Amino acid sequence: MNNFEFYNPTKIIFGQGSISKIKKLIPKKSRVLMLYGGGSIKKNGVYLQVADALRKHELFEFGGIESNPDYSTLMKAVKLVKKNKIDFLLAVGGGSVIDGTKFVAVASRYQGEDPWDILSQGLGKSIKKALPIGVVLTLPATGSEMNRNSVISNRKKDLKLSFGSEKVFPKFSILDPKVTYSLPQDQIRNGLVDAYVHILEQYLTYPVGAVVQDRQAEALLMTIHEIAPKALQTDPPDYDARANYMWVCSNALNHLIGVGVPQDWATHGIGHSLTALYGLAHAESLAVVLPWLLWYKREQKQEKLLQYGYRILDQKMQKYSERIDRTIEALSSFFHSLGMPTTLTSYGLDPDKVAEEVQANLAKQDFNRGEHRDISAEDAAAILRLSR
Amino acid sequence: MNNFEFYNPTKIIFGQGSISKIKKLIPKKSRVLMLYGGGSIKKNGVYLQVADALRKHELFEFGGIESNPDYSTLMKAVKLVKKNKIDFLLAVGGGSVIDGTKFVAVASRYQGEDPWDILSQGLGKSIKKALPIGVVLTLPATGSEMNRNSVISNRKKDLKLSFGSEKVFPKFSILDPKVTYSLPQDQIRNGLVDAYVHILEQYLTYPVGAVVQDRQAEALLMTIHEIAPKALQTDPPDYDARANYMWVCSNALNHLIGVGVPQDWATHGIGHSLTALYGLAHAESLAVVLPWLLWYKREQKQEKLLQYGYRILDQKMQKYSERIDRTIEALSSFFHSLGMPTTLTSYGLDPDKVAEEVQANLAKQDFNRGEHRDISAEDAAAILRLSR
Repeated sequence: MNNFEFYNPTKIIFGQGSISKIKKLIPKKSRVLMLYGGGSIKKNGVYLQVADALRKHELFEFGGIESNPDYSTLMKAVKLVKKNKIDFLLAVGGGSVIDGTKFVAVASRYQGEDPWDILSQGLGKSIKKALPIGVVLTLPATGSEMNRNSVISNRKKDLKLSFGSEKVFPKFSILDPKVTYSLPQDQIRNGLVDAYVHILEQYLTYPVGAVVQDRQAEALLMTIHEIAPKALQTDPPDYDARANYMWVCSNALNHLIGVGVPQDWATHGIGHSLTALYGLAHAESLAVVLPWLLWYKREQKQEKLLQYGYRILDQKMQKYSERIDRTIEALSSFFHSLGMPTTLTSYGLDPDKVAEEVQANLAKQDFNRGEHRDISAEDAAAILRLSR
Repeated sequence: MNNFEFYNPTKIIFGQGSISKIKKLIPKKSRVLMLYGGGSIKKNGVYLQVADALRKHELFEFGGIESNPDYSTLMKAVKLVKKNKIDFLLAVGGGSVIDGTKFVAVASRYQGEDPWDILSQGLGKSIKKALPIGVVLTLPATGSEMNRNSVISNRKKDLKLSFGSEKVFPKFSILDPKVTYSLPQDQIRNGLVDAYVHILEQYLTYPVGAVVQDRQAEALLMTIHEIAPKALQTDPPDYDARANYMWVCSNALNHLIGVGVPQDWATHGIGHSLTALYGLAHAESLAVVLPWLLWYKREQKQEKLLQYGYRILDQKMQKYSERIDRTIEALSSFFHSLGMPTTLTSYGLDPDKVAEEVQANLAKQDFNRGEHRDISAEDAAAILRLSR
C-alpha cells in the first residue's frame, strides 16, 4: 500500500425531507448566494423548498449555470458575489453547479490577475481562501458534493480543466433521494456510468497490496450492478434504489477508495476533450473511451483486469487472455444494458477524424495521464481510433 | 435506507515514516500534553520519534494510562492539563490511550460538578468544548483514531461506559504500519477480532435496503479474512498485511458503514461487563459473547445471517436453518483459527455464575441493546449461559 493522506470534512445530511435543515446549517447572518442551473429546480419543487427554508436569511440567486460550467458564466457570479458582499454560497444542482460554485468560491477571493490561472497553471494547492459552500444535490453523478475537486470548461479556449483544494470541500451536503424522482432516465443512466467510471479510474491500474481499498472499490461496483435496473425505474421510482444510487455516487469519488493506490484518469482526460469539442455529455464521453483504453492497456493492467473480471463480472474461464477479452466485453455489455453507447460511431462521429482533433486538443495541455503517466496525446488518438 | 448524518473531519496520515509529520500538524505555540500507556512506546522507538519531532514545542507528558482507561487515572491527567495550561493533547497509543485522551479533552473543559456524569448521564451530545486532540496510533483495533467515541472504565463502580461527541474527533491521526512490528501476536489477534465484531455490530441486524453500506461492510469483512494470517505473521512482519490490518480497523468504526442502518452493540455492552468484572481483554470478551448472541437471536437476524453466510463464509447449502447453524459455527471457527477462544469456559469461568453476576451489573445500567432495543440484562444472562 502506498503512503497517503485522507481528509474529508464534508457533513452529509441524507434522506427524504432533509432540505429544510439548511436553515440551521447556514449561519443566520450570512449573505447567501444560491447558485443553480437551467431552472429544473423551479419545476420539481426544490427551489421552493430552499427559498422557504431560507426565508429568514439574506438570500440572492444566480441561475443559468450550464452543463460543463463555463468560465465566463461563473465570472458573472463572481461579480455578483463581490457586489453584494456574499459570504456563503449554496449550490443547488448537480456536478456542474457544484463544480462551478467551487470555482466561484475561490475566484471571489483570488488575489492574482485572472482566476483561470488556477486551472491552467495548476494552482489548486496554493489556494488559501475560499467562500464557504453548502450543497443541495439534485443530480447524483460526479461526487462533487463530497470532494475537493472541480472541473471547469472554457469554451473560448476549447478547454475543460480541473483543480482541487481542501478549501472547497462543501461544509455540508443535503442528499434527499426524492429529488431524483423528477430526473429523466438518461440522466440517471449518465450518473450511474459516471460513478462506475470514477471507481474504475481508481481501481483498474496495478496491484499495490491495498486489500481494503480494492474491496471497497469492488463493493461500490457490485452495488451499481445490483441497483442499476431498479434505479432506472421511473414509474414509480423506487426509494431505496434511488438512495443507493445517490450514496454510491458520493462514495465513488469521496477520496476513500483512491487513497494509497495508483490512479489512472486518462479516460476522464480524453473524455473532457470529447465534451469540449463535440458536446458529448460527460458520462457519454467516458463510455466511448474506457473499453478501448482497457483494450489498449490490457498488458499493463492485466492483473487488475483479471481481478475485476473474476470478482465483479463473473469471468472465471481458465485462459487468462480470453478472460480479459470477455471482461472488457462484459463491461461494454453492462453499459449497453443501461442504454449507454460505447463507440464514437454511435454518435455519428468518425473515429479517425476525432482521434486527430482530440490529439491536437490534448497536445495543448501537455496531456500525460494513466497510472504510469505514459498515456500521451498520441496514445489517446490510438485509443479513439478503436472506438468504432 | 434510513435517514442519516455522516461527518468525519479527522485527517489521516498513513504510511511508514509518517510520525515526524506531527511537528507541522500541531500549532507551533501549543502547550502539548503527550498521553501514553504502560511504556511500550519507550521500547519500540515511538516515544523517541515523537519527542524528536516535537523538540521545538512545549511538551509535557502523562504516562501510565492502563488498558480500559480508568476514570481516576484520567482525572490525574485533567489536573495536569489545568495546572500547565495545556492546549493540545497528543495521544500516543491504542484505543485505551485515545479513548482516555478524549475523556481528558472534555473533562478539562467541563463546567459541571463531576465529569463522570458525561458517561453516567449520557451528556455526550451536549458537550460544547474540548481540547484539540492528535493521535499517533500504535495498536490498531478500536477505530478510536478516526471516530467520535470513547469508552471509559470506573473500577470503583465496576462500570465501563461510553460517550460520543463531534468535539472529540481527532484533528489528525498518524497511522504508521511499522509501529505494529513490535506488537505481540495476541494483540494483533485482539485487534482483528475487535474490528471484525465492530463490523458485525453494524451489519448483522435486519435489512433496510442499504446496499452500499452492506457491500462496504462485507468488503471489510472479506479484507480481514484475506489478510489475517499474514497480519499475524511476526518473523518477518509483512508490511502490506500490517497496513491493511491498520486501515481496516479504522474503517470498521469510522461511522461510514454504520450510517443509515440499524445497529446492535449488545455484544459490546455485555462484553464491557465481562471486562469490568473478570478482566477479560476487550476482544476476548466480544468473542465469548457474539456467537452465542447470534444463536440466541437467530430468528430476528435470519435474513442478514443468511446474507453474511452466503457472501462471506461461503455457506450455500439449500436448507436455510442449516445454513444459519453452519454460518455461526464458521464464524467461531474463524476466531479459533486466529487463536481466539469463544467460550467462557475456556477462561475457567462458570457460565451460570457469570450470567448471574453480569445480569446484576447490567441491571445497574438499565441495559437495553440490540437493533430492536430488546436485549435486556435477562437476555444477556441467557446468552452467557450458552457460552460453554
